[in-house]
Amino acid sequence: MLLGSGNVGFHLSQLFINKGFAIHEIYNCRAKSGIELSKKANSKFIDDISKIDKNADLYIIALTDSQIEEVSAKLKINSGVVVHTSGSTNISVLSKYFDNCGVFYPLQTFSKYVELNYSEIPFFIEGNNIFSLKLLKKFSSEISNKVIEINSEQRKLLHISAVFASNFTNFLYTIAEDLLQKANLNFDVLEPLIKETTRKALLNNPQNSQTGPAIRQDFKTVNEHLEVLKNDKNLLFIYDLLSKMIIDKHN
Amino acid sequence: MLLGSGNVGFHLSQLFINKGFAIHEIYNCRAKSGIELSKKANSKFIDDISKIDKNADLYIIALTDSQIEEVSAKLKINSGVVVHTSGSTNISVLSKYFDNCGVFYPLQTFSKYVELNYSEIPFFIEGNNIFSLKLLKKFSSEISNKVIEINSEQRKLLHISAVFASNFTNFLYTIAEDLLQKANLNFDVLEPLIKETTRKALLNNPQNSQTGPAIRQDFKTVNEHLEVLKNDKNLLFIYDLLSKMIIDKHN
Repeated sequence: MLLGSGNVGFHLSQLFINKGFAIHEIYNCRAKSGIELSKKANSKFIDDISKIDKNADLYIIALTDSQIEEVSAKLKINSGVVVHTSGSTNISVLSKYFDNCGVFYPLQTFSKYVELNYSEIPFFIEGNNIFSLKLLKKFSSEISNKVIEINSEQRKLLHISAVFASNFTNFLYTIAEDLLQKANLNFDVLEPLIKETTRKALLNNPQNSQTGPAIRQDFKTVNEHLEVLKNDKNLLFIYDLLSKMIIDKHN
Repeated sequence: MLLGSGNVGFHLSQLFINKGFAIHEIYNCRAKSGIELSKKANSKFIDDISKIDKNADLYIIALTDSQIEEVSAKLKINSGVVVHTSGSTNISVLSKYFDNCGVFYPLQTFSKYVELNYSEIPFFIEGNNIFSLKLLKKFSSEISNKVIEINSEQRKLLHISAVFASNFTNFLYTIAEDLLQKANLNFDVLEPLIKETTRKALLNNPQNSQTGPAIRQDFKTVNEHLEVLKNDKNLLFIYDLLSKMIIDKHN
């Protein structure tokens, strides 16, 4: 039973279909994306939460953080395990409502229509009791080679680290793209540099891989760059602060 | 003729050796790294700049930005082309001293002992006249499939964009690594996420690939993350500013 048909819901349903798992029902309050996904998954589409099958083994809530509690309050079931897929939401949001509950958090950036190799995505799981945890462990290990048990506090730190390593990194790429545009250059000139930076960080750890004007304490270059950025207050601030943090960290 | 035996000097000499180019002399004021590199490259080691061969075709200054001018002032040669390899240094630093000069800037992050595929590294070149440019074009195109002619202003913007896309990105990875350590998790749990983030940004452009709490305007999550970071002023500031910039950029 899958609740939600957004990016995460879409990818989880793809994954379950690939694995040959049956999704009996898909719930979504917005009919369009829910019907579309239900057809693909050969599932029954449900738009009224009171009509959901009360006897499923597993209910996966793949909705936005603010909708998780809203839907949980309305979801009346018998004995199945209810899990959410959110990095930031504490398990306690579910344990208020359900005897058996947990978290099933896939650490990946999901865009619709981008196919992923699911077996390499780490799944971080948490259960409110041994029964929930056992079911989640069994289920997750059929999907991924990397299933890791963590608690809600660890998951929150993990989520923040993912924001830095993925969302903010992508935004730094966006800043780079804009600067290159001013120089009449395409973003793809950075491709070998970006690939090598990532490869080195993953191979030797990022702390051992730092290069650039800041770690060399090449203040002449740092100041010249700040001079170029001086008309954009935010860019100036970020360049300055990250440079200072690099110097502090490495000295 | 190669002046400098640091990271860039090391990698350029490797590259020239691989290509079968002769490096007649290698100059460095610090004997140790210079002698080491000269042996590898089968070159004559020079530590006194006045003894450099005055009749080479090409002099490559692979030294720090502050040393480029210092060495240029002392380098007395006949008719060869003198180039530097710096992203930030204007060609005018060389044209003060030499009739024929230019820039030969490889866009890559260089660490000693990390082998690179040089043919995929873009080389950005600039010449002060047709003679210098022609020699640089010929030389670079024997090394790389991607030789791009840009001027010093473009190169400065390119260098700043590389700082954001490589040096600062690596530092965000370092921040992520530190946060994960607090959660007793290893940096490598982020590997599939980082690879996918980079792959999507290079495939569809970063601006079209932004995900995360900020672009969803999920202020509940953003505020919860800020609450966790509140004891680290710098992290708090960066998280807050980057989130605001993402919201501004995408709305």
